[in-house]
Amino acid sequence: MKEKITKLINERKYVEVRKEVTKLNVVDIAELLEELDKSSYLILFRILPKDMAAEVFSYLSYEQQRYIIDSITDKEIKNIVDELFFDDMIDIIEEMPANVVKKILKNTKEEERLLINQFLNYPENSAGSLMTIEYVDLKKEMTVKEAIDHIKETGVDKETIYTCYVTDKNRKLEGLVSLRKLVISDDDKTVDEIMERDIIYVNTHDDQEEIAYLFKKYDLMAIPVVDKEGRLTGIITIDDIVDVIEQENTEDFQKMAAMSPSEQEYLETSTLSLAKHRITWLLILMISATFTGSIIRKFEEVLQSVVILAAYIPMLMDTGGNAGAQASTLIIRGMALGEIEIKDILKVIWKELRVSTIVGVILSLVNFMRIYFIDKVSLKVAITVCSTLFFTVVLAKIVGAILPIGARKLKLDPAIMASPLITTIVDAVALILYFSMASWILGL
Amino acid sequence: MKEKITKLINERKYVEVRKEVTKLNVVDIAELLEELDKSSYLILFRILPKDMAAEVFSYLSYEQQRYIIDSITDKEIKNIVDELFFDDMIDIIEEMPANVVKKILKNTKEEERLLINQFLNYPENSAGSLMTIEYVDLKKEMTVKEAIDHIKETGVDKETIYTCYVTDKNRKLEGLVSLRKLVISDDDKTVDEIMERDIIYVNTHDDQEEIAYLFKKYDLMAIPVVDKEGRLTGIITIDDIVDVIEQENTEDFQKMAAMSPSEQEYLETSTLSLAKHRITWLLILMISATFTGSIIRKFEEVLQSVVILAAYIPMLMDTGGNAGAQASTLIIRGMALGEIEIKDILKVIWKELRVSTIVGVILSLVNFMRIYFIDKVSLKVAITVCSTLFFTVVLAKIVGAILPIGARKLKLDPAIMASPLITTIVDAVALILYFSMASWILGL
Repeated sequence: MKEKITKLINERKYVEVRKEVTKLNVVDIAELLEELDKSSYLILFRILPKDMAAEVFSYLSYEQQRYIIDSITDKEIKNIVDELFFDDMIDIIEEMPANVVKKILKNTKEEERLLINQFLNYPENSAGSLMTIEYVDLKKEMTVKEAIDHIKETGVDKETIYTCYVTDKNRKLEGLVSLRKLVISDDDKTVDEIMERDIIYVNTHDDQEEIAYLFKKYDLMAIPVVDKEGRLTGIITIDDIVDVIEQENTEDFQKMAAMSPSEQEYLETSTLSLAKHRITWLLILMISATFTGSIIRKFEEVLQSVVILAAYIPMLMDTGGNAGAQASTLIIRGMALGEIEIKDILKVIWKELRVSTIVGVILSLVNFMRIYFIDKVSLKVAITVCSTLFFTVVLAKIVGAILPIGARKLKLDPAIMASPLITTIVDAVALILYFSMASWILGL
Repeated sequence: MKEKITKLINERKYVEVRKEVTKLNVVDIAELLEELDKSSYLILFRILPKDMAAEVFSYLSYEQQRYIIDSITDKEIKNIVDELFFDDMIDIIEEMPANVVKKILKNTKEEERLLINQFLNYPENSAGSLMTIEYVDLKKEMTVKEAIDHIKETGVDKETIYTCYVTDKNRKLEGLVSLRKLVISDDDKTVDEIMERDIIYVNTHDDQEEIAYLFKKYDLMAIPVVDKEGRLTGIITIDDIVDVIEQENTEDFQKMAAMSPSEQEYLETSTLSLAKHRITWLLILMISATFTGSIIRKFEEVLQSVVILAAYIPMLMDTGGNAGAQASTLIIRGMALGEIEIKDILKVIWKELRVSTIVGVILSLVNFMRIYFIDKVSLKVAITVCSTLFFTVVLAKIVGAILPIGARKLKLDPAIMASPLITTIVDAVALILYFSMASWILGL
């Protein structure tokens, strides 16, 4: 496709280019644009029909959007801005540098500019920052026929027409009615008769994670957003929620690998910014790990008399860390999905106690055979290593299960109680166990 | 609510119970049911209006569904089965024990039974296993008015009426038209004139992960599923895709913590099953870690002469593991979201090289101050530890970045190249580095 379009553009066959390109999905056009070189780029973008251009624009990367706004005329900017959905426009404005924002705002209407300012003030990741203002607004006195006619007239510019919102004269949200219900109802029924009154809604300052949870729980397609006075200020649609879900998951992945979360794509993040997101936790964990070191120093004499003990430190530490990571991951994920709650803590501990006993026994037996028969260590050393292994696994699983629940109880994010932190804690305890066992069993 | 309903049920005020409960959302009714004791449970379920009962039923846990089917009459089962969406029914049948399935199948029509068998044969996690058959089917000769009338007549039982599918007489998919387009178009236009022909569709055997990717990329609400001959066999709606996204993320979390993935909720999984999902990787990693042990044994003499070196092994291993986990997590996640591809490998290595240099230098300096000034080790030991730390961090980040991309190249899941495996590899290399450095710098 890319070669074909480039060729047509070079031959200045613009009518044909337009015919070819408008057959494509807007997402694919955006992808095609990103592959073209800069000279063909603007030509192709300008060839697009007005409404399509705005849609394609909203799928481009911020860098590309900036390049386009920098290169096109005010009139062209106005065309795009008029066609863009409000929530997409807010997203773009939030990411652009000041001079580009100025250029965009110059081309919006006075009232729209006020609204933009209001929207920019909503906290990041709040309902306000996610919502759009293009929804269908009905009155309860309308008949079904009047309502459908109203949708016909105004529906083209709405983000969704499948859920319509019923408000009173003070914009207070009174009910909602799906287009489905409208279409299958008799023409002369009133909206009042068929609307739902038990509405699930959110407030402008609610956090996106809770909103995503409501969408998942109630299988919603859209949710209304109201202000403190109960007035409808916007709606959030499911396509934005899908992005929120992936973003929240990415954050959890990052936190669980001891990084401060970032919304930027990896390849687009600067080296310095990547380093900054990683260094804090690495430092904290490194310094904690030196305490593990001081445990070894304290038992230096034990180690000096039976140096072979050192050979099993990595295995004990790694296995403990892995066992703890498994438990903490399941608990963190279970809590994120709302499947595990604080009140389940005893059930969880009891479960991990049983699981870790099974797992611990198998690991210890296999390990015993490995080191007694292959490494040919003495029986006492083998017993020391294997009993430490067993207790480390049990302990790691319990700690890995309790800490995330404890974090939630303390209103911290459970995701930070993941593998790296658990490993550091388990390491220290495992070593104390190890050397105490050794002193006792080997009689040192 | 729970107390109120229980009280009303005990007082046998069933009309009032029904009035109270039908005000609620079906999801909330399902939640309420799960909280009631068994005696009130069935009473409440039987009080529900027929269509509501089926919907509530589809939101109950499998255990509860099983209990209900075991307890109610064949006629009641038939009522539920008639009202259930086809994809929900398939999900339920897949999870029920044989005697319950028999009871359900007895109450379905012959033709439906054939269809159920066909659906049960689709591979797990394929488009076929996700799709539903309740879609709106239009013909291109219909006018907009005829189409809307058709939707009015048949739309009540459809999973979505917002995207309608146009098929020819052989059920071949020809196009699609949104209800939005129908509502805003003139009554006497034909479907042929307004339908989209450039359709994004999937095949019955396509994997759910790819389907979820299409939904995210194109902001879809529903996608048609066709068989090998291009005939429309069903549709998949976004609410099911949201579940797929969370399920795929859960699988990644589990794989990245060295577990074989499971779809069951933690609290509902048996102890044995939990242990089984964890033991394989723990065994593999434990045995790999014993190789790290043999490295230490090989350098036993070095260690014996400078026992203090052992004190810094945990810190080196943990920091290396954490540094590697950060890189591998970002790469695995980036690939899962389609942001990083195999061809980006050189860009990724170059980026990690720079990031790890910055991070490595800072960590080494902090560590130097910590052990030289506080632990008061000799300068040579401090240099040994800190230079090993630096190289370990760089190496860990490069390995952590390359392995997931390599896995993708080999058509393996990048998620298995996560923290546990990276840690084991980095541990071994870090120790070899450490003792080689020590031999060289300390002249042992």
